[in-house]
Amino acid sequence: MAQETVLIPVDTLQQFMIDVFTALGVPQEDARVTAEVLLASDLRGIESHGVGRLKMYFSRIKNGQQKPVTEFEVVREGPTTAVVDGHHGMGQVIGKRSMQMAIDKARNYGMGAVAVRNSTHFGIDGYYALMAVNAGMIGMSFTNARPSIAPTFGTMPMLGTNPIAFGAPTDEECPFLFDAATSIIQRGKVEVHDREEKSLKSGWVIDKNGNPAMDPPAILGGLEKGDYALLPLGGAGEEFSGYKGYDLATIVEILSASLQNGAFLYGLIGFDKDHHLQPFKLGHFFMAMDIGHFVPLQDFKITTGNILRELRQSRKAVGSERIYTAGEKEYENEKRIRKEGIPIVPNLQKDLKNIQMELGLSKYHFPF
Amino acid sequence: MAQETVLIPVDTLQQFMIDVFTALGVPQEDARVTAEVLLASDLRGIESHGVGRLKMYFSRIKNGQQKPVTEFEVVREGPTTAVVDGHHGMGQVIGKRSMQMAIDKARNYGMGAVAVRNSTHFGIDGYYALMAVNAGMIGMSFTNARPSIAPTFGTMPMLGTNPIAFGAPTDEECPFLFDAATSIIQRGKVEVHDREEKSLKSGWVIDKNGNPAMDPPAILGGLEKGDYALLPLGGAGEEFSGYKGYDLATIVEILSASLQNGAFLYGLIGFDKDHHLQPFKLGHFFMAMDIGHFVPLQDFKITTGNILRELRQSRKAVGSERIYTAGEKEYENEKRIRKEGIPIVPNLQKDLKNIQMELGLSKYHFPF
Repeated sequence: MAQETVLIPVDTLQQFMIDVFTALGVPQEDARVTAEVLLASDLRGIESHGVGRLKMYFSRIKNGQQKPVTEFEVVREGPTTAVVDGHHGMGQVIGKRSMQMAIDKARNYGMGAVAVRNSTHFGIDGYYALMAVNAGMIGMSFTNARPSIAPTFGTMPMLGTNPIAFGAPTDEECPFLFDAATSIIQRGKVEVHDREEKSLKSGWVIDKNGNPAMDPPAILGGLEKGDYALLPLGGAGEEFSGYKGYDLATIVEILSASLQNGAFLYGLIGFDKDHHLQPFKLGHFFMAMDIGHFVPLQDFKITTGNILRELRQSRKAVGSERIYTAGEKEYENEKRIRKEGIPIVPNLQKDLKNIQMELGLSKYHFPF
Repeated sequence: MAQETVLIPVDTLQQFMIDVFTALGVPQEDARVTAEVLLASDLRGIESHGVGRLKMYFSRIKNGQQKPVTEFEVVREGPTTAVVDGHHGMGQVIGKRSMQMAIDKARNYGMGAVAVRNSTHFGIDGYYALMAVNAGMIGMSFTNARPSIAPTFGTMPMLGTNPIAFGAPTDEECPFLFDAATSIIQRGKVEVHDREEKSLKSGWVIDKNGNPAMDPPAILGGLEKGDYALLPLGGAGEEFSGYKGYDLATIVEILSASLQNGAFLYGLIGFDKDHHLQPFKLGHFFMAMDIGHFVPLQDFKITTGNILRELRQSRKAVGSERIYTAGEKEYENEKRIRKEGIPIVPNLQKDLKNIQMELGLSKYHFPF
């Protein structure tokens, strides 16, 4: 085991993930999609939602919380809308097919939206918004998740980190892509701090009394018991408008659950009253709008590019050298990481080794 | 002039506003709509966007920045989409007709969206989302506005307070209704603090060096010159994810401007390079989704009601007695204010008196 972070070539890690999922019973093409979505996260430098969670998917498939073979059922369909039941299959496979449906509907009618029930963790939210962008559309993607965020004036983790993803094409190489939890930090960031053995900042997480909590292992163990909660964007109370983050998380919960008659809040915890594991029953909501139905796509791209350039060129704060727009940092990360390889921290090396041994994938010779 | 806040009956104030707009040349029915939208804000207890801004509309109509007679032009239309040019008419009239188009399209196809160019300040964003809710739909409404918010790592007011409104029906009397600026506080709140002669809290607004600014008159005068800026939800820098508020404001700018080839950022400032007044050229974006195309409306209402009830019933922080969900406070305000009347602070009394005298509306006998 290396004592330090090592860089693994993208192709190697991609093939390894495909082989892991295939060995777990995921059909070849679905394994490819799942690995592709996870890799998209690592490539963008979002270590919380990529290969770092391979162990999580591995465990969930093994313990039956999600099924390796995805049964994708369209429960109801109209010109611009659909409801899909994922039957606890692979979230990435369900997500990609659902967003494709929304895109196809938007191509025909201008707009398309698909609500999904009984899904599982689908990786980074931004992947799906980006699918629409690549089709010349505005894409939005929402998902609920295990209870983590406390409501304003509350201390129970009630809402998932409930991310919002929004993508739009521009006249630049890099599209506008927002992909963020409605909490200040997301659960995956706690996991990254845990793997790196760093403590959190005060004001991100509270304990059951509402006091600041900073210890990742305690928080990761205690979130499920309701002993800790993430704070919504804007923080505790109303002084800095933390209720806006809380309300945005609630909006994502409504979009993800109510439009498909699905599970929500503590219904997504992954175990029943007797503490037996059960599927997570996540809900997603995907939306696409075909820009060409409003204005010529090229006009939209230029206007959006102009907005972003004016923002970036505006006056910097003392000590700041650069103003970013959404997606820029991740786009630059991807260029760099494709060349350098994916960084694997020591604790993650251990996880990957264990998976490799358990599945007998001896053809891989990692430098750890 | 009363030295204290006085309460004016709702009907009186409503009729007064209608008469003011009619006297300014707004057609009777349009004056009724405009007054209705402004009143909706006061009734919900949002003093920043109601009668407190009558003086603003009065000045803008008089100085030609907006036209009393609204020419509503549908520039382009498809099954689920439309682009509207408001030709600098009354924002409330343009907004209401546009949202109604989105609702009608959603009724037929499941979804509807209307992008608007060349509009003017349309009052509270939530009014339009609520129109969809009353039609059994999810409603969303977005608008850009005069430059106010600084980008993360920047100090120039670049983006408007760019609000997001989202409404959904529930099985309770009170619908879910989120309506909030993507800044921590909005410009109207600075105006309210100014009228009430109170100072702001540190961390809401920055000066051109990035230091906290708290003096409302200086800020209101200096925002247009770029000397002050509102901070995005999440605050300055990245530590508490202020970039998420900044990105959300950018999303609202893209939705409001790019889908209709319109003005944006400093194009919305209301004067030209020679400091001559010009129309604000605001853009809006309205969206409606007909719930019945996904699931039976009653099922949606029950699921959403259950989510909200579970949130409200969750564990309270020490010293907190109640957890709210979006729209509850405002709903309760409306019940109270309908009985008690609309509170008019001394500085606003002065404004209303001046308008009354200038327009010769002598039939009103206000207690100030």
